[in-house]
Amino acid sequence: MNNERLEKQMRFIIEADKMKNIYRQTLVLHEDRAENDAEHSWHLALMAFLLLEHSNCKADLTKIMKMVLIHDIVEIDAGDTYCYDEVGALTKRAREEKAADRLFGILPDDQRDELRALWEEFERCDTPESRFAAALDRVQPLTLNYMKGGISWKNHGVKYSQVIGRNEHTHEGSEELWAYAKALLDAAKESGILTEDGIYE
Amino acid sequence: MNNERLEKQMRFIIEADKMKNIYRQTLVLHEDRAENDAEHSWHLALMAFLLLEHSNCKADLTKIMKMVLIHDIVEIDAGDTYCYDEVGALTKRAREEKAADRLFGILPDDQRDELRALWEEFERCDTPESRFAAALDRVQPLTLNYMKGGISWKNHGVKYSQVIGRNEHTHEGSEELWAYAKALLDAAKESGILTEDGIYE
Repeated sequence: MNNERLEKQMRFIIEADKMKNIYRQTLVLHEDRAENDAEHSWHLALMAFLLLEHSNCKADLTKIMKMVLIHDIVEIDAGDTYCYDEVGALTKRAREEKAADRLFGILPDDQRDELRALWEEFERCDTPESRFAAALDRVQPLTLNYMKGGISWKNHGVKYSQVIGRNEHTHEGSEELWAYAKALLDAAKESGILTEDGIYE
Repeated sequence: MNNERLEKQMRFIIEADKMKNIYRQTLVLHEDRAENDAEHSWHLALMAFLLLEHSNCKADLTKIMKMVLIHDIVEIDAGDTYCYDEVGALTKRAREEKAADRLFGILPDDQRDELRALWEEFERCDTPESRFAAALDRVQPLTLNYMKGGISWKNHGVKYSQVIGRNEHTHEGSEELWAYAKALLDAAKESGILTEDGIYE
């Protein structure tokens, strides 16, 4: 094949297959196994498509979908840092920047820059698109966790206040999704699948 | 929660989690297991994003991404019909229409109609967006199969001519992706991981 540009793009697409092997703390609903980053990213893109109308601000769907499709790609090198892992959080940014250099660097320069910018914007969370993407990225695992009887909160001794803290910015992307999430969390507390003190029987 | 519309949307999003449990004939590259529909759909959406410039005709990226995100959702009820399964193919359309009625029917009416129309367009394959989506849907498994040493061709005794036939419309979406795919198939035949007669040692 004599098309250097397409070759670089396909190399990235093949490298990205590793997203299917990065397992998160959330479980899928109908099997007894962790969800991986590819599945999670697909689910967020579908949610962006269907839930855009609930964004607080007018936001560009194409940009949100691009963003959620690649927001976790740095984990191919940096691994998944569980959101309640305070030690892992200390080195997360440095690990992920190095990963971004290598992974986005596989692409042609213009696409390297576009994906890098999308990822940085997602991380900064300071635009309508990134705020809505971040809200989806909170509400999706929370919903699966709730549907699954809170198993990953239980496994990690997570407290109600930690989950509330983790979701403190969700309302900045979508007041409606935050209301939905808050209702789930309160129902979870009510039924004991999420506790105040992170202690589970 | 007092928001009937969001409730319907979330019911569909939760139902769609079953895409993570529908296994295809293609294997993921770095584990010894089949790829599922959620992973496949994520991969196609990423490809749409990165490869759009190779579409023969000007095509709308947002529409392509929406289309590939949901193109296999009917398989939640209808199951995955392997593309070389001639018996399964006879009942595929009827099974999938029934599935589309139930699944898209979970959504609010306007979104039910939008997703149904996207799926029907993908099936008809008569627009720039659906032709490009179909090209991606051929090139992705072919690439993974090639990278994996042709294992799913071998498992099913698939012939070179069958794969060429399966790809006969790829060029209608993208001449460039077809040239890439054809080069892979010829390399596969050259190295014996895809054979003329479908007989493998």
